Amino acid sequence: MSIVVVGSVAFDSLKTPYGVRERVLGGAATYFSLSASYFTEVRVVGVVGDDFTPEHEAVMKKRGVDTRGIQHADGKTFFWKGEYGENVNEAKTLQTDLNVFGSFQPQLPAEYLNSDFLFLANIDPVLQTQVRDSMPDVKLVGGDTMNYWIKDHRANLGDMLKRVDVLLINDTEAKMLADDNSLPRAARKVLERGPKALVIKHGEYGATIFFRDGQFAGGHHPFRAPALPLEEVRDPTGAGDSFAGGFMGYIASQGEVTRNVLKHAMFYGSVMGSFSVERFGTERLQSLSREEIDERFGMFRELTHLD
Amino acid sequence: MSIVVVGSVAFDSLKTPYGVRERVLGGAATYFSLSASYFTEVRVVGVVGDDFTPEHEAVMKKRGVDTRGIQHADGKTFFWKGEYGENVNEAKTLQTDLNVFGSFQPQLPAEYLNSDFLFLANIDPVLQTQVRDSMPDVKLVGGDTMNYWIKDHRANLGDMLKRVDVLLINDTEAKMLADDNSLPRAARKVLERGPKALVIKHGEYGATIFFRDGQFAGGHHPFRAPALPLEEVRDPTGAGDSFAGGFMGYIASQGEVTRNVLKHAMFYGSVMGSFSVERFGTERLQSLSREEIDERFGMFRELTHLD
Repeated sequence: MSIVVVGSVAFDSLKTPYGVRERVLGGAATYFSLSASYFTEVRVVGVVGDDFTPEHEAVMKKRGVDTRGIQHADGKTFFWKGEYGENVNEAKTLQTDLNVFGSFQPQLPAEYLNSDFLFLANIDPVLQTQVRDSMPDVKLVGGDTMNYWIKDHRANLGDMLKRVDVLLINDTEAKMLADDNSLPRAARKVLERGPKALVIKHGEYGATIFFRDGQFAGGHHPFRAPALPLEEVRDPTGAGDSFAGGFMGYIASQGEVTRNVLKHAMFYGSVMGSFSVERFGTERLQSLSREEIDERFGMFRELTHLD
Repeated sequence: MSIVVVGSVAFDSLKTPYGVRERVLGGAATYFSLSASYFTEVRVVGVVGDDFTPEHEAVMKKRGVDTRGIQHADGKTFFWKGEYGENVNEAKTLQTDLNVFGSFQPQLPAEYLNSDFLFLANIDPVLQTQVRDSMPDVKLVGGDTMNYWIKDHRANLGDMLKRVDVLLINDTEAKMLADDNSLPRAARKVLERGPKALVIKHGEYGATIFFRDGQFAGGHHPFRAPALPLEEVRDPTGAGDSFAGGFMGYIASQGEVTRNVLKHAMFYGSVMGSFSVERFGTERLQSLSREEIDERFGMFRELTHLD
């Protein structure tokens, strides 16, 4: 089954201890689309400027991603410049030019509206709510957000939280959103505000999914997927969006959404995140095979399974 | 099979968001002994002062711990006063009185010398080396250390590292010991200095065991055990020593030391750590049953196992 993703398409200039890249293709919707494309049919909604060429679009098309929802606006594409030091878990933002993304109004092509799954990448929660309400019949909605919206757009974010089935955020965001320093307590508080499940991403320590009681067949205890202990994290940019792509893509590829499907989705999310950080930008996500993905899935299983 | 543990016996004054306790029984060897006592026969080596009463010793004796190796010296028992804030992962030390522990010279009773397993809790690496060399025929030696020894006693610590089979430390200590901010790289560097396996404890994110190539039957890939997402961590004191007690105690209870045994030991370590923090001091560790332990082992399995 197909999935619609709405979010940023961008150019990133990146500096990590492993090197420098100028203006490579990035953005949450891009990472998500490429990652999810290994599991299901992906339809992307975003906005780009006149510096976005057919060659850039071809990166997604080659992976079978439907790009009819990418609007072309006058001006420049969203640009982000960031740097990672020794601690790859923390990005230092050097420059953010919203450009055409600053006035983004998501438009869903009519052909997208029959999709069963939807992912709202990190954009203004007002827009997330609009998009979600324009697809009332989807089977499952996933969503992301960030510090900026949590701090200063609480009410709008509250509306959005009532409309997502699974929220995917990181430790810091979960604690900030719930105003609680205990992750398990924060998880419970966030679930009380709407989502049926909450995925908290712990970076190199993996990710945990918390369930609201009685929401998915198979129990409500949390479930944790590990991350791969990688000696060389070349570029952590997009790891979270790649996780979300693997997670949602796998769910969309399955007939029904059970606890068991969500558990496997956690592992596939971790798998895709681990690939993403091995090379700069979306490079690794462009050239995978399903065999490589399933082989790594086996490694993840080994990492945490008792005989 | 029996295990000898050498380390501190102490009184702790504790303050956490859940309350205050004055001068409760603590110390690495105490937490370790109580935790390991659910798996195997434990023999403890330590030193106490004249404020340590038969009632204190009875806490260990009731759990079947052999306390003949506890020396009684003139003066007061090691005292630690600490406080935990909102972030339970960080203790703030308010007072440390080494007292009789400051001139501790471990003496192993003759009856201990036939033990097959040894755990060197966090004490001066010179003493750790002496004890280890006095038991040349043990099957497996586990060891702990801390920032203080890593910073200023590098050479002595190097001697100790050559003599332990499994080192158990936390993230910060591993990075400091290897002088490397990548945990997987740090693990490899630490393993090059002696240990056959390295357990890195990640607090609420669980723990990972890294193996030196070819050291244990069954492969050398790392293995990760989760931690339980606990809403109420009443007192994190001794969590690492309780982990070590479950880990080493389980190993000592098994006939041979294989990768599979070490993987299960990681889960039992996490289980015992999770019990320890539920109540203040060693309270929870004094009153467990093997049934409760195995039930929680099942919860840990559920937390990370795919069907």
